[in-house]
Amino acid sequence: MIRYRKQIEDALTACMDRPMLLPQLREQMAYSLLGGGKRIRPSLCLAACEMLGGDIKEALPFACALEMIHTYSLIHDDLPAMDNDDERRGKPSSHKRFGEANAILAGDALLTYAFWILNAVRGHEPAKSELSYAALAMVEGQSLDLADSAADADLLFEITRKKTGALFTAAVLTGGLVAGCDDDQYQCLNRFGEAFGILFQMADDRQDREQDAAIGKKTLLTCYGKERAQAEMAALSAEAFAALAPFSGQAADYLRGLTAALAENGKWKVES
Amino acid sequence: MIRYRKQIEDALTACMDRPMLLPQLREQMAYSLLGGGKRIRPSLCLAACEMLGGDIKEALPFACALEMIHTYSLIHDDLPAMDNDDERRGKPSSHKRFGEANAILAGDALLTYAFWILNAVRGHEPAKSELSYAALAMVEGQSLDLADSAADADLLFEITRKKTGALFTAAVLTGGLVAGCDDDQYQCLNRFGEAFGILFQMADDRQDREQDAAIGKKTLLTCYGKERAQAEMAALSAEAFAALAPFSGQAADYLRGLTAALAENGKWKVES
Repeated sequence: MIRYRKQIEDALTACMDRPMLLPQLREQMAYSLLGGGKRIRPSLCLAACEMLGGDIKEALPFACALEMIHTYSLIHDDLPAMDNDDERRGKPSSHKRFGEANAILAGDALLTYAFWILNAVRGHEPAKSELSYAALAMVEGQSLDLADSAADADLLFEITRKKTGALFTAAVLTGGLVAGCDDDQYQCLNRFGEAFGILFQMADDRQDREQDAAIGKKTLLTCYGKERAQAEMAALSAEAFAALAPFSGQAADYLRGLTAALAENGKWKVES
Repeated sequence: MIRYRKQIEDALTACMDRPMLLPQLREQMAYSLLGGGKRIRPSLCLAACEMLGGDIKEALPFACALEMIHTYSLIHDDLPAMDNDDERRGKPSSHKRFGEANAILAGDALLTYAFWILNAVRGHEPAKSELSYAALAMVEGQSLDLADSAADADLLFEITRKKTGALFTAAVLTGGLVAGCDDDQYQCLNRFGEAFGILFQMADDRQDREQDAAIGKKTLLTCYGKERAQAEMAALSAEAFAALAPFSGQAADYLRGLTAALAENGKWKVES
């Protein structure tokens, strides 16, 4: 169901093949970056670019940067001082594999490298700014999450909007901006990204709901309860579809298909 | 001895005053960023810009980004999994004050915010690229440092060049590039930055030599021994002066003064 997979994997692999990178650090970065994942954020970026008539080659640096920023956040979130997760995508998490100090550095390096790649691109300041802003919002979301374990639904929504939603929104906005979207199109992409991001998190939580319930983890799903959660997901899905209404073509249909799959939690298995 | 202090402090304070930042994260970022420090990297950036006839206002975003990147690296280096330092600049280190998870996030946020500030600047891609490259080299230096505790002088030099030197070099290069330096001037700034960075680290090590000797810490100084260290510092100082030879005016004299102070370790107390 993921489009553009080959372009994305090839571009990420090419990023990690640069001889300038210190071999040991490259190995640690590549272990997490090239270790699987659905590449959903870069796919959204390329789809938005194509949908707006842009050249997806121009969006590829942004797609790669998005995945690097997402990957660095997973490495740091998994650290013992944070979520203390020993596994990620079916293999040892970065700090389990390389030790805590190296995992901190691998995350720092991926974040830095993402910006190095962006800064090698001429122009496109609004798209770069959008992505940096989202990366900062993501840290804010994590900070809010750390600070309050007794979160209510409103705070959990705010955490989700920042921690997960911001990067999804940046994914479609950067793709659209690279394609030269106008203000109206920007607003549509923004609406779509915001709805899609929350929907993604709720679909993800739905997959983990038994596990989360067992450890007493609060999610939007557990806060809302089953009925309200279903209603919220339907509303988010409707919002995402409405935002896509002005667009047609294969890429638009692809974004509609992803939205439908998340809402139904059907054929498409959601992985982070 | 530090010029431009008021401009730098005002600019950094203004960065931290943006209402968009989540208050708790802003407090944690500001605790380390506004908590003292000689602001030597931003001063070098502004001096290089002024020396090349540029407008230092244009270099200020780069100066701020340099200090943020330096500060994030201190926060992460101090973490228990890294150097495990309880104090920084005479007060508790970030993780001692806010806990380890928040310190990781404060560092992540400062690094991200540095790039957000750069990405809000139009153009100047070569300067932005230079700074991202240096930020990556810094992580590589730290990675090398972690990997080999039995480092010889050559490896220690390489570690110092990346971990400390790269950001000093980027400081003068970004200042020069913002001012529109030509290729010859770029090469001079590069030579100056590389020599100055190593000299800075050796002067810093000289201040800590008794403490380092007590804990058996290897530095370029302990590796070289007193006589060779003095000769190396004299050579680095001569190299830095030679690189500055084409330049005149107050800003050039300021850079010469800093170099002389490092070489003599005299009136100017070096702090990181």
